[in-house]
Amino acid sequence: MKRIYLNEVATRDGFQIEPTFVPTDTKVALVDALSECGYAKIEVTSFTSPKAIPMLRDADEVMGRIRRVPGVEYTVLVPNKRGAERALEAKADELNLVMSVSETHNRANLRMSMADSFAALGDVIKLVDGRTPINISLSCAFGCPMEGDVPQQHVLDWAQRFCDIGVRGFTICDTTGMAHPVQVSRMVEALQGSVLKHRPELQLALHFHNTRGMGLANVLAGVQGGITRFDGSLGGLGGCPYAPGASGNISSEDAIHMLDAMGYDTGIDLDKLLGVARQMPDIVGHEVPGQVAKAGRITDLHPAPPETTPA
Amino acid sequence: MKRIYLNEVATRDGFQIEPTFVPTDTKVALVDALSECGYAKIEVTSFTSPKAIPMLRDADEVMGRIRRVPGVEYTVLVPNKRGAERALEAKADELNLVMSVSETHNRANLRMSMADSFAALGDVIKLVDGRTPINISLSCAFGCPMEGDVPQQHVLDWAQRFCDIGVRGFTICDTTGMAHPVQVSRMVEALQGSVLKHRPELQLALHFHNTRGMGLANVLAGVQGGITRFDGSLGGLGGCPYAPGASGNISSEDAIHMLDAMGYDTGIDLDKLLGVARQMPDIVGHEVPGQVAKAGRITDLHPAPPETTPA
Repeated sequence: MKRIYLNEVATRDGFQIEPTFVPTDTKVALVDALSECGYAKIEVTSFTSPKAIPMLRDADEVMGRIRRVPGVEYTVLVPNKRGAERALEAKADELNLVMSVSETHNRANLRMSMADSFAALGDVIKLVDGRTPINISLSCAFGCPMEGDVPQQHVLDWAQRFCDIGVRGFTICDTTGMAHPVQVSRMVEALQGSVLKHRPELQLALHFHNTRGMGLANVLAGVQGGITRFDGSLGGLGGCPYAPGASGNISSEDAIHMLDAMGYDTGIDLDKLLGVARQMPDIVGHEVPGQVAKAGRITDLHPAPPETTPA
Repeated sequence: MKRIYLNEVATRDGFQIEPTFVPTDTKVALVDALSECGYAKIEVTSFTSPKAIPMLRDADEVMGRIRRVPGVEYTVLVPNKRGAERALEAKADELNLVMSVSETHNRANLRMSMADSFAALGDVIKLVDGRTPINISLSCAFGCPMEGDVPQQHVLDWAQRFCDIGVRGFTICDTTGMAHPVQVSRMVEALQGSVLKHRPELQLALHFHNTRGMGLANVLAGVQGGITRFDGSLGGLGGCPYAPGASGNISSEDAIHMLDAMGYDTGIDLDKLLGVARQMPDIVGHEVPGQVAKAGRITDLHPAPPETTPA
């Protein structure tokens, strides 16, 4: 059984766009519950300015109060040096940096050019100076909702530049659900043939959204290509302002349920995870897109109607 | 570009479980709109007893009033000889028979044993006597919500028995969304190595539900295995009484959008289809699960916010 490593991003990527503040106690309890499910990594929160993302204004308190389970890495999003200092102070196990590989999306999302982002994130890496592993998440790697196609070579080049300045791993993000399986297969093959070729120890993760229903098909293309690390968001929380009404991130439990059925070792206690997933509608105050929490596992059987018993 | 053939089942498999009767005029207009989209086949309705499926009590009238577009096959579900007579009278291009490969599900769904179903459907095939092509849909081929696992050999055996008595094609149905991609790959390979080996002209189609989010991943596994025929339901209409709140059939437009992006020739005018898909919530009076109708195609771009323009 091949091992797959799951990174849960609901409390960061999911919560950050929720309209209603999730109380700190609830966040801590949720991360603690997730810690018991077998994740390799949990992206707990974001050390961004509280003005930029008010939903995550309690980042320091959440990181201080969660119960750390050995074997689980607690990562945090860090946009700049100030965030990195807070993350180091909070003893995060990893810092996750973000840059979009689309100039227009980077300016829309981070209010600066890609060149400025790269310089600023280089400063963060220098500041951290090897004390904590760093991951770079490359947004819009499969297309930009404003620019359209993003050339694959462009993604490879940016991944290489970050790997050259000292990240431990990188996440190729389909930020707005534009990737399709053939594109995923080509991207994975190209990364394996370039950036990863002489640095196989680099951690490569894929981050998909289900905006157009292709999320789990893209996960399938990823595992078929040999990828072992995936981001997911419990309940399918998260999303994209350009697709109102559509699904957000892939649902962790749906992806894990599929990988589990396919015979992969996800390390996850799926029944426990579904128990947590079923709390999500109450936590965020609305329905969530995840399907398995509603439908049950494929192994959950139902009683036959009495009249169908053979006479 | 490899050709993929799409069979639209929304007006039969979708409508049959809707709580509110869709007016005959609306059904006819919908089928006529679908006929302009490039489908290979449309499953228009079901010649079942009006008492069993009141939603489709206007089957004869719908079949009589739709505009036939050359190149599109108009198929109908037929449960018995009475239905077959009505279908022949209505000049259907194909009769679609249904049997579950799970004894318990067949009894629950069709109120008879599989042996009785096979005998009754054999009588239908004799009655039709080659005048119209016949398809057999094998339900629960990837698992039964009551019995659980259905052995693959069992599915192969039933497919073989129906092929031996004169069907033109067969549809392997994941009736309640229990299939996963590895299972689909194995099933396809096994069918190609047995039933289809000496009868390559037999039409093999796959019918998936998205109950647990795996629908398009299963389509991907299918096309990777060389399958060229798929059922889909506009908007993702349809479903399963055992999974309240979960998705139904795979959404035709989401599946076609993915196949189109991957470079397959689906024969479908996707923009026209999305126009029809966007009418579905009004037609059935509730939201539908299809994603692309909400999110737009991956090629639909959005304007950049003005402040992101480089100074």
